[in-house]
Amino acid sequence: MKNKISVVKIGGSIINNTSFLNELISDFIAINQAKILIHGGGSIVSEMNEKLGIKNRLNKGRRITTSEILDTAIMVYSGNINKNIVSKLQAKNCNALGLSGCDANTILAKKRSNKPIDFGYVGNVKQVNSNSIKCFIDLGLTPVFCSITHDGNGQLFNTNADTIASEIAISMTNHYDVELIYCSNKKGVLQNPKDDDSLIHCITTKKYLELLEKQIITDGMLPKLKNCFNALNNKVGKVSITNYQGLKYNNKVTKIML
Amino acid sequence: MKNKISVVKIGGSIINNTSFLNELISDFIAINQAKILIHGGGSIVSEMNEKLGIKNRLNKGRRITTSEILDTAIMVYSGNINKNIVSKLQAKNCNALGLSGCDANTILAKKRSNKPIDFGYVGNVKQVNSNSIKCFIDLGLTPVFCSITHDGNGQLFNTNADTIASEIAISMTNHYDVELIYCSNKKGVLQNPKDDDSLIHCITTKKYLELLEKQIITDGMLPKLKNCFNALNNKVGKVSITNYQGLKYNNKVTKIML
Repeated sequence: MKNKISVVKIGGSIINNTSFLNELISDFIAINQAKILIHGGGSIVSEMNEKLGIKNRLNKGRRITTSEILDTAIMVYSGNINKNIVSKLQAKNCNALGLSGCDANTILAKKRSNKPIDFGYVGNVKQVNSNSIKCFIDLGLTPVFCSITHDGNGQLFNTNADTIASEIAISMTNHYDVELIYCSNKKGVLQNPKDDDSLIHCITTKKYLELLEKQIITDGMLPKLKNCFNALNNKVGKVSITNYQGLKYNNKVTKIML
Repeated sequence: MKNKISVVKIGGSIINNTSFLNELISDFIAINQAKILIHGGGSIVSEMNEKLGIKNRLNKGRRITTSEILDTAIMVYSGNINKNIVSKLQAKNCNALGLSGCDANTILAKKRSNKPIDFGYVGNVKQVNSNSIKCFIDLGLTPVFCSITHDGNGQLFNTNADTIASEIAISMTNHYDVELIYCSNKKGVLQNPKDDDSLIHCITTKKYLELLEKQIITDGMLPKLKNCFNALNNKVGKVSITNYQGLKYNNKVTKIML
């Protein structure tokens, strides 16, 4: 039987709120098995661009990463957010190791095609080096990934953190029995986005298609759920969507199932 | 007999010049033994502060690191510079791993006393975790350190990169026969700072005292030479000061000896 691992992704809404982040970090550390943290933080990149007088460019809510926006993304993700989270984990005796995809060649990506839309320096994950990641875990380290990847030829990329989380989760099934948990600003998938008590506790493939038809799953939840089902279809055992409290309260999550 | 390791520190004048940096990276990769790279880049932090409208504060040429300047330093050192160097090394098949002192708890520091001068969030190196660094090297990785450290209680610090290089070199003597090489903008220590051909090929303790008396060693060379002698006095076998070409041309360096 394989050992268990938890792959936890946290979004900007948690990173931006010190009390949420501290609570989540405590609960993450309490996970008594191998674990990996992945963080986003797009809103912090947008704020830094504004400070630098760089115009944020979006296409249907998705960022266009120009060369100068890539520089900001690398600074913010690999620099500030990553190192602040690592030092917070270290302060609680969790021996964290901050990683971008270029570090130890952990995440190779390919520039996204510029058709139909040119998203600029955005990479699609090509390969996760699960052996290296396992070596770090075997040394007693807890990998903390940001959403920067590389192409192996010296080019760094901005990459969707939800996708990185699902791709890391899938790759770790080579070695572990994997659970993937997305923590963002909502308790999970809500029947009514304005009502926090309308949590849907379980979404199966059948339910998913129903929710899609009723347009209850929209905007950012669409790609997130695609990543969830992609993980489940590729040997990841358990997937859920929750908020900063979901690691503690197992009943306050949306479980995604095939 | 211990295996050999090269600890190479590069300064901002090399990082800022793409052709110098590429040449140095090629020569660094050609070092056919274990190796560690440490980078500075203070001028790039200063430029970023200017872009952000943050005033650079200096006391006798040494930076005062306010809270917001620390944020810039973390972004620039741990983010842009570190990840760009790592991705360039990866492009040449050198399996680099970018590290800040918080990563794997590699470099613990203590906030510098605020007397006689309050330098702000500057850390003095307290302990280098040579066992972790050796584990990475044993995995076939090449550590690339920036000059950010932590106190183990969640506080990150800006730390002098020359000092980090000598402290890492000293700590690695637990496992290796260590050579420390400082690469900056001059061929080495010059008899006449304006004449690049006035390279002093060897500085012994006696010569050092003479040069100090004649005020030939001044400004930034003073702390650099202190770091050199500190390393030599703590089991580091070889120390030299050179520029971006010094890894290739062994005769174009200043060797420091006890």
